[in-house]
Amino acid sequence: MKVRLMFIGKTVSNALKELEQTYEKRLSHYVSYERIELPDVKQAASLTTSQLKDKEGQLFLSKISEDQHVILLDEQGTSYTSEGFALVLANHELHSAKKITFCIGGAFGFSDELYTRSNGKISLSKMTFSHQMVRTIFLEQLYRACTINKGEKYHHS
Amino acid sequence: MKVRLMFIGKTVSNALKELEQTYEKRLSHYVSYERIELPDVKQAASLTTSQLKDKEGQLFLSKISEDQHVILLDEQGTSYTSEGFALVLANHELHSAKKITFCIGGAFGFSDELYTRSNGKISLSKMTFSHQMVRTIFLEQLYRACTINKGEKYHHS
Repeated sequence: MKVRLMFIGKTVSNALKELEQTYEKRLSHYVSYERIELPDVKQAASLTTSQLKDKEGQLFLSKISEDQHVILLDEQGTSYTSEGFALVLANHELHSAKKITFCIGGAFGFSDELYTRSNGKISLSKMTFSHQMVRTIFLEQLYRACTINKGEKYHHS
Repeated sequence: MKVRLMFIGKTVSNALKELEQTYEKRLSHYVSYERIELPDVKQAASLTTSQLKDKEGQLFLSKISEDQHVILLDEQGTSYTSEGFALVLANHELHSAKKITFCIGGAFGFSDELYTRSNGKISLSKMTFSHQMVRTIFLEQLYRACTINKGEKYHHS
């Protein structure tokens, strides 16, 4: 299965960078994983929230082709248990040849255009996590889902 | 307000340790914060799950006095938005002089005795996060709650 994780801006904290790399490395043993780090929008401070979301949306959409199944990480999305999320991945692998692309939005969320293009939304929590930390939290869930689908011990260790 | 975070075992990853320290330092500007790292139960491998939970429960309870308001981080707990969680803290500060103690359980959860002693349960997510990562995720939420209650910008930055 091909899994892509796409977000805006570099990870600033070295500690978070290290954790991302740890889970990306583990994940790559289970799926063909691609990380797409989009550049920050230039002169973002001079834009309105809506203009910034649109510009960020265009960046996301420029990397999304027809053959992508696009899932947004969104507070309004469906919440799953780790087992439920693992099942979502397993079902996708079974029934679709499309690459699955997960998008983590900027501070103000996604553009309308990106919502329209997307195929689904998932929520990690009702709580708001820091944008940079979400990357690590989600990578750990992706890795966890892979171990669940393989019947490996990690999930209950 | 006095806030204590209690859990079993050292944090292994240096990256997570660094993140914990970052949020603990920030948090200490808002509340009187205390971290209580309980030692791992010895010869845990020779115990049944139930015996291990009981031993861990005794460790937690040995640090809990009458004047503590005890909240367990538990998958079966109430889930809040970050604003909702901030309100829980603000209400506690307003109506109770008790120290608030949050407990993160071991791999198998809490003992019955600790459930009985506790005053409430909260859930960060339907998903299962790694036990070590939960510490950082929750510390960030505590810090976020403090900034929300002070009307500061962090939550939407």
